Amino acid sequence: MKFQITFLPNEIITHAPENTTVFNAANWAGLAIDSTCGGRGTCGKCKVQFQNGATPINEADRKFISDADLGAGWRLSCRAPIHRECVVNVPRLMTSPKAALLGYGRHVVLDPNVAKIYLELSEPSLEDQRSDLERVVVALDKEGYQVHADLAVWRALPKILRARDFKITAVVCGDELIAIEPGDTTDHLYGLALDIGTTTVVGAIVDLNNGAVAAVKSTLNGQAPFGADVISRASYAMLEDDGLATLQTRIVETINNLFDELLALSGVARENVYEAVAVGNATMLHLLLGIDPEPIAVAPFIPAVEQAVTFPAREIGLRLHPHARVSTLPHLGAYVGADIVAGVLATGLARSEDNKWRVYIDVGTNGEIVVGSSARTISTAAPAGPAFEGAQIKSGMRASDGAIEGVEISDDVHLQIIGGDVKPIGLCGSGLVDAVAQLIECGIVDVSGRLLRADDLRGRVSEKLIARLVEDAERGVRGFLLSDPESNIVLTQPDIRALQFAKAAISSGVDVLMQKLGFTANDIHEVLLAGSFGSYINPASARRIGLVPWVPVERIIAVGNAAGEGAKIALLSFREREAAQRIPDFVEYLELSGRVEFNDIFTDALAFPIGK
Amino acid sequence: MKFQITFLPNEIITHAPENTTVFNAANWAGLAIDSTCGGRGTCGKCKVQFQNGATPINEADRKFISDADLGAGWRLSCRAPIHRECVVNVPRLMTSPKAALLGYGRHVVLDPNVAKIYLELSEPSLEDQRSDLERVVVALDKEGYQVHADLAVWRALPKILRARDFKITAVVCGDELIAIEPGDTTDHLYGLALDIGTTTVVGAIVDLNNGAVAAVKSTLNGQAPFGADVISRASYAMLEDDGLATLQTRIVETINNLFDELLALSGVARENVYEAVAVGNATMLHLLLGIDPEPIAVAPFIPAVEQAVTFPAREIGLRLHPHARVSTLPHLGAYVGADIVAGVLATGLARSEDNKWRVYIDVGTNGEIVVGSSARTISTAAPAGPAFEGAQIKSGMRASDGAIEGVEISDDVHLQIIGGDVKPIGLCGSGLVDAVAQLIECGIVDVSGRLLRADDLRGRVSEKLIARLVEDAERGVRGFLLSDPESNIVLTQPDIRALQFAKAAISSGVDVLMQKLGFTANDIHEVLLAGSFGSYINPASARRIGLVPWVPVERIIAVGNAAGEGAKIALLSFREREAAQRIPDFVEYLELSGRVEFNDIFTDALAFPIGK
Repeated sequence: MKFQITFLPNEIITHAPENTTVFNAANWAGLAIDSTCGGRGTCGKCKVQFQNGATPINEADRKFISDADLGAGWRLSCRAPIHRECVVNVPRLMTSPKAALLGYGRHVVLDPNVAKIYLELSEPSLEDQRSDLERVVVALDKEGYQVHADLAVWRALPKILRARDFKITAVVCGDELIAIEPGDTTDHLYGLALDIGTTTVVGAIVDLNNGAVAAVKSTLNGQAPFGADVISRASYAMLEDDGLATLQTRIVETINNLFDELLALSGVARENVYEAVAVGNATMLHLLLGIDPEPIAVAPFIPAVEQAVTFPAREIGLRLHPHARVSTLPHLGAYVGADIVAGVLATGLARSEDNKWRVYIDVGTNGEIVVGSSARTISTAAPAGPAFEGAQIKSGMRASDGAIEGVEISDDVHLQIIGGDVKPIGLCGSGLVDAVAQLIECGIVDVSGRLLRADDLRGRVSEKLIARLVEDAERGVRGFLLSDPESNIVLTQPDIRALQFAKAAISSGVDVLMQKLGFTANDIHEVLLAGSFGSYINPASARRIGLVPWVPVERIIAVGNAAGEGAKIALLSFREREAAQRIPDFVEYLELSGRVEFNDIFTDALAFPIGK
Repeated sequence: MKFQITFLPNEIITHAPENTTVFNAANWAGLAIDSTCGGRGTCGKCKVQFQNGATPINEADRKFISDADLGAGWRLSCRAPIHRECVVNVPRLMTSPKAALLGYGRHVVLDPNVAKIYLELSEPSLEDQRSDLERVVVALDKEGYQVHADLAVWRALPKILRARDFKITAVVCGDELIAIEPGDTTDHLYGLALDIGTTTVVGAIVDLNNGAVAAVKSTLNGQAPFGADVISRASYAMLEDDGLATLQTRIVETINNLFDELLALSGVARENVYEAVAVGNATMLHLLLGIDPEPIAVAPFIPAVEQAVTFPAREIGLRLHPHARVSTLPHLGAYVGADIVAGVLATGLARSEDNKWRVYIDVGTNGEIVVGSSARTISTAAPAGPAFEGAQIKSGMRASDGAIEGVEISDDVHLQIIGGDVKPIGLCGSGLVDAVAQLIECGIVDVSGRLLRADDLRGRVSEKLIARLVEDAERGVRGFLLSDPESNIVLTQPDIRALQFAKAAISSGVDVLMQKLGFTANDIHEVLLAGSFGSYINPASARRIGLVPWVPVERIIAVGNAAGEGAKIALLSFREREAAQRIPDFVEYLELSGRVEFNDIFTDALAFPIGK
């Protein structure tokens, strides 16, 4: 249920789900409303005037707004959840807020969940015997922060307050006072964005004062030896003694080591990193938190925790600031996780105001798919199998040095190899897609997926290409030699079948969602390919093999590591993070398991498109 | 600022501070309003109808009450903070709530902060893929509990939910889901009340289902070897390496050992004790939490934390349920601590509706004093010195076996000794007070505190008594032999002087407060003597030496361990706990240090009363 909000004087129109505050809706629409408390109802600065559709008057309104002004429709926008269409007048800002361009063209107003506030407190006396804590809390309240503190801060108070004559910097994370530091340390304020993939973990240290990335780096997930995909990881946790503890230790070590490298690269001090936002699929986040993922792995596929959560970093052994917090984003379902929610956030998929249909695909062992517009959005996961990861492919390999990542076929085969001028040693996912797409294009593979024989091809393709048709004498498996004979990288008929199954699973998922939403490929505005694989795939090849719907190639866009971008956005803007937390409220989750129409569509989708 | 609330139909009138909810005010007045959510605004059962003075309508009201009823003055009483005089109609309860008689005649409605809720959850399926957490949270919401959970519960969810077919008991502490247990465990629900004295620690395991005390026990504070009073403890923390850590370890060990004994005595299982309420003076609670108490010990006497706090028991090493919480009560000042707040709660001192003046004294090294009525109440601390604890008294000792605890003087001396028929080995505080009072009464000590000589007494008192006058030949110190010559327990002239200083400090404190409040001894309704010493003191003797104002003896009441009773009340009733947390809002704190009138009054108060 969404309602239209019109912001005056500029007549900016947006649509927001019920219960969104006017403050957050304005922020999303790129309209910054003045605020120092970050939308917590305590600074009283975010007043707006309703022209119609005013929300009921509440306690916070009464605290900051006179009766006459309340009568004239003035309200605190951060305490005004919309329940119907409305028109709101927003006073012009005196200063323009800091912003950063992030994700897929998202203009994000900086509003991090962590804030540093420098305070020069009055010193206690027999006439002013307020406790240390009250002295700090009252001073923060005047700055618009209503906080509570825990044992760590209580213990720090006597010494830190008296270290520099009661001049301190308070570090506030959400509504928690997580640290106090002597003197003015406001210049040093950083966060960590984490995208925890099954294979790869990407981390970025972000300067929360200006949105700049201080360092970014990726590394292999240290759980890799215990299984290539989420199912094998869950099995390991299930079947091995201490399996869960082992996997948790591995991912925590992976992140700690990555973080050490990021600190070294950036020169940032560990104790100045106060918050992390972590995204990943449900299994990865369960393992990070030490929660048994078994019920995710078996029907009916139930995560223990699906919502966004926040917890102290030290509770899982992450070595950030000793009292740093970690926040996650929510999952949409057991197999459409926080990484996809982050991608939806980074691309603005479900919020774009143009009412155009978009298809978001994160291609991997599970293809995660989100299809929709601001009117309605549905997500699902399609079991693609490991072909796109290069697994169960004869010469398959991960996208690392020596992998064929691009293939072009004219009169002969031209390869693009990761690492440049090296001998190819295998075929990664994007190379596989390219190879098959090119073989279809030149007619060596037909639309049924059959690798034609030399006799059928003679005269229609070059002899050089025909010479590349090979057959494994022993097993009778036919194939096409992609490399020089010495390197002997062969694409086999079973490889092509594996890719057909993989792409059919994903395209069937897309089709089911498009059917449900009632539109066809002709109506698609954009296809967004995300994830480490999606970003390297050739859009034309993806279309040629039928992985994505047949749309003009320029509408197929690689959006890079959208999950990591989404994590950064959530780190830099609490309002965006709140928006992400509400994504499950309006992005539906469709379970494909056991759906009859999926099986029908899947069978039809095995063939390659005829092309145009 | 207090307002009158009249509850209909019974015309019960009470006065409550501004912002008190009607729900809590009614509860205090002994009027239970229906509620299952404990005043959290989520069950919608606590509706009342304002006849006048209705509070503004808020979101919670709208959720549960129709527009017509809102117009007729109906509101949720737990969301109705009073800001003016009002008359409220309370629907009669269908069932009478459980209650217990606690403290000084307080009738406490059971409403513990910890609740157990048995849930039979629906099992997940492909049609109902809600996460484990959401399944529990939604079921609790239906029962009126809006909770959040942390890592410990997230980790427990998959296994516990599936252990007994999704039948679980949720343990909710405040708004936190602290544990889930398989099956129905609602019968096992306990809390721990702790009164942490400088000398003695008292613990009680309380059955939160019915208010019964399952076991109670006291033990010596293991910090005792590091100093007898708070100043010497603070010095130890300040001056010794790891002094703070040592003292914290000692008190935590003391409590853990005491708790082990309480578990053995009661047969209660450790993991069924979910919450502790701890009271004590500010220094003791700082040491318990590991907070440096130094700024409390030196002018201007500033606690780090004065407010009530809640934290996980395991964070300080207390071995209750692994996720149990500890809550404290607030302090009124550096030297009027949570133990006194608990005493005020237990005696109803500042809330009694009779508008009569009461004086509350906790006699010890620091005499803590609270004087007032429901109209106005002031507290202070008077530096009595250690005389009442038996220290710096020639034959002084703690109140343990062999201590003279009572003295009666007629023609000879009659002793009451702790442990019964044993030889006396010293004089504890109550014995000291008795001895001096009796010596004044029979004229052996005059009102100036001088021990008269045999020549002055001959013919006025018995020869047996005169024979007890002794003099230390070497040091010239005169005294009065209380015991048989062999035991040789002598009350000396310097002992009497020490007691004069101690009692003068306390009575001066009482006088300063009475002057400030504008009443005299004749207006006093009750003098309440609290604490381990106050409970044993003979009221007539306390009056005779001028420790308490001269009021009819029957108005001097020993209220026992009021601090411990207050802790129990706070454990058994969240509303009472909230009331205790607000006590600092209306009980003033007066700092005696450096007040000129205190010194004048003190000098006058050194003499003993002339008597009547």
